[in-house]
Amino acid sequence: METSKTNSGEILILFAHPYPQQSRVNRPLLRAVQDIPRVKIVDLYEQYPDFHINIQLEQQRLLSASLIVFHHPFYWYSAPAILKQWQDCVLEERFALSEGGFALRGKRLMSVVTVGHSKASYQLDGYDRFPIGHFLRPYEQMAIHCGMQYLAPFVVYSAHRISDAEIENRACHYRQHLLDYLSEAEHE
Amino acid sequence: METSKTNSGEILILFAHPYPQQSRVNRPLLRAVQDIPRVKIVDLYEQYPDFHINIQLEQQRLLSASLIVFHHPFYWYSAPAILKQWQDCVLEERFALSEGGFALRGKRLMSVVTVGHSKASYQLDGYDRFPIGHFLRPYEQMAIHCGMQYLAPFVVYSAHRISDAEIENRACHYRQHLLDYLSEAEHE
Repeated sequence: METSKTNSGEILILFAHPYPQQSRVNRPLLRAVQDIPRVKIVDLYEQYPDFHINIQLEQQRLLSASLIVFHHPFYWYSAPAILKQWQDCVLEERFALSEGGFALRGKRLMSVVTVGHSKASYQLDGYDRFPIGHFLRPYEQMAIHCGMQYLAPFVVYSAHRISDAEIENRACHYRQHLLDYLSEAEHE
Repeated sequence: METSKTNSGEILILFAHPYPQQSRVNRPLLRAVQDIPRVKIVDLYEQYPDFHINIQLEQQRLLSASLIVFHHPFYWYSAPAILKQWQDCVLEERFALSEGGFALRGKRLMSVVTVGHSKASYQLDGYDRFPIGHFLRPYEQMAIHCGMQYLAPFVVYSAHRISDAEIENRACHYRQHLLDYLSEAEHE
């Protein structure tokens, strides 16, 4: 867990939304956490509109973080494409997996996801047929494969229908969640 | 099932591999099916190196098919990024979901996947912790959400280690699998 200790407390939020200005929920969520010290937000679509990821820069950013957050709306039960491009390009074997690599070992990964359907829909007997964690398995297993700990996802359900007050409430929770992490990481 | 009937038998293979020349397994697989009449192969990375998908063209291709195949190696327990970009762009709500849309209803979707690890690894007590179908849930549920039938995936395990003879064997099976589909579709 050496990596985690030496970088304790820094949070890297990789935000993936192709049209953030159209998002009722994601903008308030980001606003709620953007001023937290030791939180770095990277807007992947803004930085890489042509999908040409700067691999070295992104790897450096990872090294500085102890918690990595994949923050995105659910598009087809997964993240928008830019995050997959980031995974495919940045998590090179020599960086993340092979001997001499394992740069992510001991860090944590958390998914922050907004979905249109309700929590009741994401059940075995619901419309979406599985709890949301089942659709997040590729991220969970990616984390484990890289020696990371996969934290419970932070989910905002019914994103198209919840009231502004509920959005603010979830945004507050998001902020508190990250603050709690930073506080705990300081005492580890 | 009207759509399926009117286009019975056409197979659209959406192939997603950023470096197909480096793939021991995927090239023989493609070679084995490329001369089958009524099989259309679209190499997504070749056609869209800049990720700018031609939405109208891709939607037209879908309309002509009764079976859509997502053919790709497993990168981080999912498809390479271009296929997600294809999903995000092509499967517009007005095309695939809303009233007047539902253009894919009655069609079938099948994943054809090559993975580095063994079948034993993709078990609850294996290294990858879940059967491969669990990682494919986002595709399965996407299909169901669009009114499609999701067929059992065709998987080539241990892709880095199997012999050339085994690759040829799997390629023959792939060919036969598609021929069987075409034959059945003709008699539906």
